[in-house]
Amino acid sequence: MSGQQSSVDPARLQEVLDGRWAHVRHAVREGLGPDFVTVPGETGAEARARISDLIRKIPLDVGVVDAFPSEYGGSGDQGGSVVAAEMLAQVDLSLMVKAGVHWGLFGGAVVALGTKKHHDAYLRDIMTVELPGCFAMTETGHGSDVQQLRTTCTYDPSTGTFDLHTPHQAARKDYIGNAAKDGRMAVVFAQLITQGRRYGVHAWMVPIRDESGNPMPGVTIGDAGAKAGLLGVDNGRISFDHVTVPRDMLLDRYGQVAADGAYTSSIENDTRRFFTMLGTLVRGRVTVGGAASAATKSALTIAVRYGDARRQFTKPGDEREVLLNDYLAHQRKLLPALATSYAYTFAQEELVATLAEVQSGSSAASVDEHRQRELESRAAGLKAMQTWHATRTIQMCREACGGAGYLAENRLPGLKADTDVFTTFEGDNTVLLQLVAKGLLTGYRDAFGSLDGWGRATFVAEQVREMVLERTAARSVIQRLVSAVPGRDEDVAVTDRGWHLKMFEFREKHLLEGAIRRLRGGAATKKDRPFDIFNDVQDHVIQTAVAHIDRITLEAFVAGIERASDPAAKALLARVCDLYALTVIEADKGWFLEHGRLTPARSKAVTGVVNDLLRSLRPEMRTLVDAFAVPDTWLNAAILREEPDRQDATATEDEAARAVLV
Amino acid sequence: MSGQQSSVDPARLQEVLDGRWAHVRHAVREGLGPDFVTVPGETGAEARARISDLIRKIPLDVGVVDAFPSEYGGSGDQGGSVVAAEMLAQVDLSLMVKAGVHWGLFGGAVVALGTKKHHDAYLRDIMTVELPGCFAMTETGHGSDVQQLRTTCTYDPSTGTFDLHTPHQAARKDYIGNAAKDGRMAVVFAQLITQGRRYGVHAWMVPIRDESGNPMPGVTIGDAGAKAGLLGVDNGRISFDHVTVPRDMLLDRYGQVAADGAYTSSIENDTRRFFTMLGTLVRGRVTVGGAASAATKSALTIAVRYGDARRQFTKPGDEREVLLNDYLAHQRKLLPALATSYAYTFAQEELVATLAEVQSGSSAASVDEHRQRELESRAAGLKAMQTWHATRTIQMCREACGGAGYLAENRLPGLKADTDVFTTFEGDNTVLLQLVAKGLLTGYRDAFGSLDGWGRATFVAEQVREMVLERTAARSVIQRLVSAVPGRDEDVAVTDRGWHLKMFEFREKHLLEGAIRRLRGGAATKKDRPFDIFNDVQDHVIQTAVAHIDRITLEAFVAGIERASDPAAKALLARVCDLYALTVIEADKGWFLEHGRLTPARSKAVTGVVNDLLRSLRPEMRTLVDAFAVPDTWLNAAILREEPDRQDATATEDEAARAVLV
Repeated sequence: MSGQQSSVDPARLQEVLDGRWAHVRHAVREGLGPDFVTVPGETGAEARARISDLIRKIPLDVGVVDAFPSEYGGSGDQGGSVVAAEMLAQVDLSLMVKAGVHWGLFGGAVVALGTKKHHDAYLRDIMTVELPGCFAMTETGHGSDVQQLRTTCTYDPSTGTFDLHTPHQAARKDYIGNAAKDGRMAVVFAQLITQGRRYGVHAWMVPIRDESGNPMPGVTIGDAGAKAGLLGVDNGRISFDHVTVPRDMLLDRYGQVAADGAYTSSIENDTRRFFTMLGTLVRGRVTVGGAASAATKSALTIAVRYGDARRQFTKPGDEREVLLNDYLAHQRKLLPALATSYAYTFAQEELVATLAEVQSGSSAASVDEHRQRELESRAAGLKAMQTWHATRTIQMCREACGGAGYLAENRLPGLKADTDVFTTFEGDNTVLLQLVAKGLLTGYRDAFGSLDGWGRATFVAEQVREMVLERTAARSVIQRLVSAVPGRDEDVAVTDRGWHLKMFEFREKHLLEGAIRRLRGGAATKKDRPFDIFNDVQDHVIQTAVAHIDRITLEAFVAGIERASDPAAKALLARVCDLYALTVIEADKGWFLEHGRLTPARSKAVTGVVNDLLRSLRPEMRTLVDAFAVPDTWLNAAILREEPDRQDATATEDEAARAVLV
Repeated sequence: MSGQQSSVDPARLQEVLDGRWAHVRHAVREGLGPDFVTVPGETGAEARARISDLIRKIPLDVGVVDAFPSEYGGSGDQGGSVVAAEMLAQVDLSLMVKAGVHWGLFGGAVVALGTKKHHDAYLRDIMTVELPGCFAMTETGHGSDVQQLRTTCTYDPSTGTFDLHTPHQAARKDYIGNAAKDGRMAVVFAQLITQGRRYGVHAWMVPIRDESGNPMPGVTIGDAGAKAGLLGVDNGRISFDHVTVPRDMLLDRYGQVAADGAYTSSIENDTRRFFTMLGTLVRGRVTVGGAASAATKSALTIAVRYGDARRQFTKPGDEREVLLNDYLAHQRKLLPALATSYAYTFAQEELVATLAEVQSGSSAASVDEHRQRELESRAAGLKAMQTWHATRTIQMCREACGGAGYLAENRLPGLKADTDVFTTFEGDNTVLLQLVAKGLLTGYRDAFGSLDGWGRATFVAEQVREMVLERTAARSVIQRLVSAVPGRDEDVAVTDRGWHLKMFEFREKHLLEGAIRRLRGGAATKKDRPFDIFNDVQDHVIQTAVAHIDRITLEAFVAGIERASDPAAKALLARVCDLYALTVIEADKGWFLEHGRLTPARSKAVTGVVNDLLRSLRPEMRTLVDAFAVPDTWLNAAILREEPDRQDATATEDEAARAVLV
């Protein structure tokens, strides 16, 4: 250490971070011991076998089945189940994904899209993993645009059954977790056709393997083979050759087919119905964002602790070499990422709380449509931002550990490879940010998950007269902070929270208004090229979405600081929040300068203050990662077990070695 | 395709890119067929066995042993050997690294640091891989600061032998390629001690395994185990317990120990001698940078071709879905990266040519010291920039291919994992950029590879009165372009090449002068805290190095365009160069705005022109990657083999499927 000591007790900070679902976090930390820890360097076959085995050993009471209805043994707490999955991601990401596919996607779809007959028949076996399942939505040819799935499921009133069929190779179900080896049943998404009319995508429960593990008649299962990571998850490809599916296997909460083939639904419009169904499955995206951030915390913990033990190059006039964490360049890598991870922790907590509130046991009909769309938008945006942050940060952490960071025994390669898929699964990040933008542009009116309605978005945008940003968290505190900022930026310190909030708000509002203006302009001049209207502003639109998510993240951080009770923890959080806010502003200073919201002098001052913050937070680095409270057994990194005597010799050993050399 | 056709023949473009060592590129493309192609999803053991076998099957006449002296069967062409290694990186990165370790590092050290007795005894067996070797420099405790290695090699005149010893665990040789399984001999770096005095780090040839593969007495070899990638390379850990090494095994070109223990060297200063020795090994860094760029080209080829076949979301009024490459957001990801890869191709070519010229057969004494230091600096800087570009771009390409990009069968996971180590091996990138900065600050005077001489760098910087940037390539053309730019930026188009050059020069010069000023200021006020003088400006110093490498890269691009003979190819290259230059300016627009070199309006105009360039280069995307001329067998990506009918259905198939659904 630098001879400097943190004044903050990590346990106090941990309380704030653990937040509303602390009990779930504690339960998982205590319930999943050394048996669950990753095995570096195992083969794909070994990983699959280990994870298949482990998923049945997770104690159900740690929260993993919380989202199931209480009448079947769950607690109906969507929030608890998201947090439990997030914690699994710190143990082993293959285990988290395997569990997420089975309980979250498969089980979640049966709960949300099925009715009592499905629940009675299957939920208990799903909870105990007696009936391992898959979520068969994505096709080789259609991943982002799932509304256009090509698999058909056609009702035949003469037999009272559906005919499930894969029309060509691009329509096979692809990348399906749990399919290559373990899945016995799948929730399959396909175009429902009855009485000669198509009603859009619906879901069916379809047995894909018999008791002895052989594919069912008409079902062909392939193996997606080796992947970058997630070796323990058996991703597969499923094709259906006119497979007969009983009528009652249709998950019919949102659309029903009578014995004679008559179709009924409480939602008339096919698109609206499909995206309402998808909306009930939003938990998957919330979970992926949280899992990505959880894994990022493991990586940061490893890199910060290594940087506090690893020395390289001597200081003039000092025999002992310099700790990596004492270098400004190293602080510039680790600390802004750490501050961003803190910010996302609070944003994710808000999101999970909103999910729990919006979706807790209420039937779809009673849900406020605006809030539901807003939830979907934030889930999409935070998923994108957290997963990109994970990819960038884990990469940076691996580089910050030098050659050691490349060895499997030090965990970082696994964290990197396993989380890599998160940027594209549960929705490609770029596509997700477009969804966020679409919601903003339309004020969530008719802003469904589909992206083909950009024309309509343009139309709605034309109606919007003035954009009013809706503050998300701790509204009164934020209002007070913003109001306290004097009119002229020059009169306020760059560490003023109200100024940060104003800068974030200004950027979002300005970008949004600009996007609307450009879409309107395009609609007027490019009537014959409707695709170009949207495509020409695609970068602007994505930037708008990012600015929006940045803003709600900062607001959540501010709200989180308010909740802290320990004064020292609160003060430290405020400095971390300064670093987060200024990191965002510094990274986008070009934009602020272009738009007259930073003068050149003030822009340079921001960089100076960021460097000051790095220096002042240096002694807190270890505290900041200790507060993540990732158990050492889970971190499973050899460089930490041997800390500090392997990185460098011990002081005594090295003294002796140096003595020989002088 | 977008219905737009490129007007350029990729073969004409390829000629320019293949450059001076086209013959080597052709030879490797023709000499390494399907037997050499990567095997997705193989286990570590399988990969090691395959690569051990393959390295002996590489035809020696394709260029891989070109750097060996002609009297032993090489051609003495350092350039050819670098280019051959770069081409191997497109076949299989494990093979490239295994070959690089054996012929490049091990063989290269024997050539450069040894004398005739070593060459006569070993070079032929090294060239044929009869004697597989390792390069044992890095220790667990010292990687970046190799001057501080702790292994000792002490001469005993009574026996006429050296005693090679690992004093503690942190001093063991670590991450050593070829050590865990195949290496029979190692060039070991250790502190030379004779007659009770230390002379700094020298190198010895040390047998580590006997004929039957067992470790030699006193040698302990461990396995570094699984890694993020490069599964085919057997990295190991070597410790020496008082191993006896005959006197004539000292590679004694730069320092000799007589039988009585008397030490002699033509270079008196220990530090200077050590860094002169290291300087002869600069080829390793040049090779890594080239290999990283070669792998990046494979990734870009896969992503661009996939984006030209993969469709998602329908256009309003169009039944066929939109190609990914037609989306602005997709172009924003792929095209700037592609332009940067073009830029580095030309910069790497200049670097290899300089290497060939500076190091071709000349003895160390006759080499111009300034040019040698400059070569080392550019090798360091371009290695850092190319490897970071590789890490970022391959990641982006994998994301641009969605779920398919995560499957091993589509190659991108392997490219990502294998190249990942390049950012820290052959020198940590951040450390390398500091070396570049140190060279700039001192005008290469006494700018050795050591980083502990920052105090001295500060001192030298104090002497510098005015910085004059030395133009690197096509000096007269660049002078003409720069001179033609009017005084006021407002009067010149943002696509003016002279303006780009002026902007790059201004930034470098301004940053450099600022760094000098800040170091001087620090030296005046922080005399008691010498570490802080440097540490406080570390981010500024690194930024300076980046600006320098950006500038020499742009100059190399300009020189490369001059060499193009086909007018259409030349015109296309000019547009790609526009995109490269404007991408760099746009990414750093905050700095240019801060320093009054961009007005807000002009800064926005840059973004507009970049978007225009993306649109105008859209029809050239395929041509631009085809000109990389990576053979299809080497690409080895399932998504390309099945192009286009797997990504999407064929038009006919999909027509039929859609018909059912309407």
